[in-house]
Amino acid sequence: MRVQVLRLGHRVKRDKRVSTHVCLVARAFGAEKIVFEGEIEKKIKEKVKDVCERFGGGFSIEETSSAQKYMREMRENGFAVVHLTMYGIPLTKVLGELRGMNRVLIIVGAEKVPRWVYEEADYNISVTNQPHSEIAALAVFLDRLLRGKEFKMTFKGAKLRIIPSRKGKKVLKI
Amino acid sequence: MRVQVLRLGHRVKRDKRVSTHVCLVARAFGAEKIVFEGEIEKKIKEKVKDVCERFGGGFSIEETSSAQKYMREMRENGFAVVHLTMYGIPLTKVLGELRGMNRVLIIVGAEKVPRWVYEEADYNISVTNQPHSEIAALAVFLDRLLRGKEFKMTFKGAKLRIIPSRKGKKVLKI
Repeated sequence: MRVQVLRLGHRVKRDKRVSTHVCLVARAFGAEKIVFEGEIEKKIKEKVKDVCERFGGGFSIEETSSAQKYMREMRENGFAVVHLTMYGIPLTKVLGELRGMNRVLIIVGAEKVPRWVYEEADYNISVTNQPHSEIAALAVFLDRLLRGKEFKMTFKGAKLRIIPSRKGKKVLKI
Repeated sequence: MRVQVLRLGHRVKRDKRVSTHVCLVARAFGAEKIVFEGEIEKKIKEKVKDVCERFGGGFSIEETSSAQKYMREMRENGFAVVHLTMYGIPLTKVLGELRGMNRVLIIVGAEKVPRWVYEEADYNISVTNQPHSEIAALAVFLDRLLRGKEFKMTFKGAKLRIIPSRKGKKVLKI
């Protein structure tokens, strides 16, 4: 399954660290790309590229001038559009249906999400109806959608690989 | 199963939003309490208390002067100590064992985690060996440990309840 993430409502400075976490989760949990509406800090792009260079894989980070346009384009390319929101239908109720998809675009918002997102998304889906974190929602969503793929992934071209250990840190330089 | 979260290395200002997400995930995914080492911003405590008042439940947020002391005390009280780290053993390998526990203290670090944590934790566990987010790691860990408990929880004393919907937002005032 091809997965992309569309990040809405990123606020320069204020959301820097949270948006960086969103990027790294997207990469580590099996998405191919994250797209931001508007411009983002150089530092976010550098951080993500640095992780990709060291830990491998073909993940990319991009910007679009219009999230709505991007969403519509992707839908024409066969992507189902899933908006993660605490107001949506519980993930557990639609998971079976979603697992049958070939391409999924996941919309992840910051504080205020415009109404068109709720209206145009194919699915408004909640990972609990409690307020928590778009980072957590994205991770749990991908873990379940892709059946724990993140535990089995290997990243091509990695310069570093971590060897799981009971105590301490083991890093293999390749 | 009783679950608590111990948050290490919170840096005032810089980690404010990330630490707030950690708190809200702990609450929404079934922990009873989060404890920070050192002092944290009033704003974090206010935000968490505000969510608890509006959305219910008995979740609490506390500070301790020594994380190590707190960890040792909790262990004496029968808590297994789990440190979430990208260097640890994959969650999937120890999940069966962990599900048999009665009490779990989860340690979640920020950038630099002191060596005693790796050495004294009963388990150093990874949610992938890739760099991503302690928020994501905590959410996936709790989702799997408590078998999707977050989707079934109800919070006592809630003033607001969200009614899952296919489009838009439905909020019930109680």
